[in-house]
Amino acid sequence: MTEEKITNDVFEETEQTTEEIEPVALDMETKNQQFDEDVEKVLELLQNGDYFDTRSLLLSYNEVDIAEIFEEILDELSIEKAIIAFRMLPKNVAVEVFSYLPGDDQVNIIDGITDKEIAFIMDEMDFDDKIDVLEELPANIVDKILDQTPREERKLINIFLNYPEDSAGSLMTPDYISLQETMTVKEALAHIKQQGMDSETVYTCYVKHGGRELEGIVSLSALVTADDDILVSDLMHKDYVYVNVYDDQEEVAEVFKKYGFLAIPVVDNENRLVGIVTVDDIMEVIEEETTEDIERMGGIVGNEPDDKYLDIGVFRHVRNRLPWLLFMTVMLMITGSLIAQFEEVLSQVIILVAYLPLLMGTGGNTGTQAATLIIRGLSVDEVDLKDVGKILWKELRVSIILGIVLSVFNFLKIVLVDGQSPLIALTVAFSMIMVIVFAKLLGGMLPMLAKKVGVDPALMATPMISSLTDMVSSCIYLLTASILLGIAL
Amino acid sequence: MTEEKITNDVFEETEQTTEEIEPVALDMETKNQQFDEDVEKVLELLQNGDYFDTRSLLLSYNEVDIAEIFEEILDELSIEKAIIAFRMLPKNVAVEVFSYLPGDDQVNIIDGITDKEIAFIMDEMDFDDKIDVLEELPANIVDKILDQTPREERKLINIFLNYPEDSAGSLMTPDYISLQETMTVKEALAHIKQQGMDSETVYTCYVKHGGRELEGIVSLSALVTADDDILVSDLMHKDYVYVNVYDDQEEVAEVFKKYGFLAIPVVDNENRLVGIVTVDDIMEVIEEETTEDIERMGGIVGNEPDDKYLDIGVFRHVRNRLPWLLFMTVMLMITGSLIAQFEEVLSQVIILVAYLPLLMGTGGNTGTQAATLIIRGLSVDEVDLKDVGKILWKELRVSIILGIVLSVFNFLKIVLVDGQSPLIALTVAFSMIMVIVFAKLLGGMLPMLAKKVGVDPALMATPMISSLTDMVSSCIYLLTASILLGIAL
Repeated sequence: MTEEKITNDVFEETEQTTEEIEPVALDMETKNQQFDEDVEKVLELLQNGDYFDTRSLLLSYNEVDIAEIFEEILDELSIEKAIIAFRMLPKNVAVEVFSYLPGDDQVNIIDGITDKEIAFIMDEMDFDDKIDVLEELPANIVDKILDQTPREERKLINIFLNYPEDSAGSLMTPDYISLQETMTVKEALAHIKQQGMDSETVYTCYVKHGGRELEGIVSLSALVTADDDILVSDLMHKDYVYVNVYDDQEEVAEVFKKYGFLAIPVVDNENRLVGIVTVDDIMEVIEEETTEDIERMGGIVGNEPDDKYLDIGVFRHVRNRLPWLLFMTVMLMITGSLIAQFEEVLSQVIILVAYLPLLMGTGGNTGTQAATLIIRGLSVDEVDLKDVGKILWKELRVSIILGIVLSVFNFLKIVLVDGQSPLIALTVAFSMIMVIVFAKLLGGMLPMLAKKVGVDPALMATPMISSLTDMVSSCIYLLTASILLGIAL
Repeated sequence: MTEEKITNDVFEETEQTTEEIEPVALDMETKNQQFDEDVEKVLELLQNGDYFDTRSLLLSYNEVDIAEIFEEILDELSIEKAIIAFRMLPKNVAVEVFSYLPGDDQVNIIDGITDKEIAFIMDEMDFDDKIDVLEELPANIVDKILDQTPREERKLINIFLNYPEDSAGSLMTPDYISLQETMTVKEALAHIKQQGMDSETVYTCYVKHGGRELEGIVSLSALVTADDDILVSDLMHKDYVYVNVYDDQEEVAEVFKKYGFLAIPVVDNENRLVGIVTVDDIMEVIEEETTEDIERMGGIVGNEPDDKYLDIGVFRHVRNRLPWLLFMTVMLMITGSLIAQFEEVLSQVIILVAYLPLLMGTGGNTGTQAATLIIRGLSVDEVDLKDVGKILWKELRVSIILGIVLSVFNFLKIVLVDGQSPLIALTVAFSMIMVIVFAKLLGGMLPMLAKKVGVDPALMATPMISSLTDMVSSCIYLLTASILLGIAL
């Protein structure tokens, strides 16, 4: 099926031609290219006021793609054009597209449409998406929306808005299917048929006991493959996995990764079911948490999860990068002062300076390798605090082997290629082993220590490791030199 | 519901006591603690030969957890004990547990059980899990298993084993539900009821046209909420999103992340449906790809996706870390030789050496920040090759501001705290701005360039950036010094 065919499907009158088109499954690159071209076409059509074709081209895409096209419209054309295009969408599509837009674009759309339209969109959105939108909007608009919301729902919205950011509570939706233990499969399916449309997922159903206490879960696949008169209580799993409403979203993501669930129940401290989290929301959490980790490992702090590089202003970029840079500058200044203490050694054997970067760089590089492995290992639960002994023992052996290999390599190069005295070469080689062992042990230990005291291990990556190893490497090297070369400090 | 209750649920005779236990929903930390304690208990029980209690404690957990306990048994006790425990599991549980074990542990189990037991497990496993196991096993065992497989399935297995590693084909399963356009909802549900048990997922069903060409998809939620006599053709989506069997698994993961699907059809070049990929397998892919990226950014290459830090031998650790270290050592040697060219300048003004780490370190740190943002941006599709101009323009402005802030800070510190001459301070300050601008532009550009020529941008992180900036930083600094201080080279 070609993209053209998909495009044509929207119009009933062209349906009959689809049979003639040779089916060709496009690979990802061709599909992406086609999409980029179509985005350009939409911008052009919309600019020229050709609304009929704009609409049909837009509607040939999935709502997620349409939202992406709207981001482009808002970036490249104007808010007015975006509002015009938005109003051309069928209402149910408009609601979906709206929920996929980034926060600031949602505010732009809200500002441009009528109160009645806002009320419609809010009413039709999934509950968890609605909460996300309300969290982004300015207070005056939120008040306006809540005024038009029925009292019961307003109460629920306020409860959900109060769950801590990054908690399971902030991810969940109250729109799930509840069943009774005593229902038969037939009754359960009839109930799902009636309730399903308003539900975030129908694929996992929740069996509640008494008031709201969660008794067990039953999957729709178990229901549809069972006979009509079997009881829900016979199909349900009572050993379900749940999360607590105050559990951190990162821990919730770990549970999804581990078990491969499509949805997971969220309960309060009294085991009452308060909502469910679905896998699609967790995919976003995983991506956000990974981005945060990677940025911290690269010495950047303060980016919000949905900030995009190009959308962040120059001054915000500066603010997010400056803290680590200042810290590292101070560390490097200290390193410099330490080196200045060895002025006597350096001025007598100036060639030592040429190997200073080698020692400092090797310390940073080898330490970073170890820290990277441990930080990632901690974040995917491969290593644990109790493994600290095993880790240090492994890093010790690895560092000794690496140290010997690299120092022999350097010794030979310094003597044979640079033509320096064996004593200088020995100074570099000996320091190098010491530096590598120190750096590997530091890189292996620091992330564990951070985790132990409740600091994000990702902060113990390159910036921190290289700052510390720079300091220690230069001291080890120059101290070794002063001893081996017999120069008093 | 407490963990105790879950434990008891296995035995019918203790069921009546569960009502009396006060429900308390445990938070993640308590649950993890409880699990760790239970693992210890299982090891002890199994060691003491108390098989009855071992079994009931094991069965109180989810299959994923049981597999984790088996990893501990294999690590801490012996293969024999693991086999004994494995044989105590109900057959359906044993199959699930087996499929969740890491490759080497699967081989251990296979080695210890009878051919008949192997055949049973293989027969009951999901098709995609079976392929994963066969890929891990030694050739002689694979042959033994294939000998006992019916001819039709053997053919299919061989096709699947031949899809390139990391392609959509290697992730997919052929066990999906096929429907006909002309079926009514009632007929479709009856078909699902009959076929569902052997299917990887029943939540998305595939409508095929003629032979195997994919016509559209229909969700189970649409089917169960529709009236009995509606036709499948009225419910199905023809504008489905698909992937090609040879698409890279990273691209497939992008599609899942973007659209939030539970399953996605995989078609060949003639648009024939050959399998489906489900979201649980994609979660693993995302984790593996992220780990690979992070490791490459930290200068480690060659780890396999399911290698765990502690399971990798010392020599494999050395081998995975040495290539980058050697590359960086050579780069640092070149930097050293360049510095040696400035021997005259350095010997005249030895204090310059004290600020060399500052300049080199700042170059590495600022370059790493930019590279980290761009590498991550490329991997989550936030920035694109066409944005190179915007990125460089943004980095230029950011680097000028950061450069001014840091160089003023350093100028003042060098004059006021270190008591050095303003000319030395000016040398450092001026070089610093140059270094930061260069490093930021390099960090912004190098990952884009890598992507352009088809190299993984993650390889352009700290190790590469800092090697290059070290070299350039020291030259800029010492050249500036020789000019400002009027010392001929």
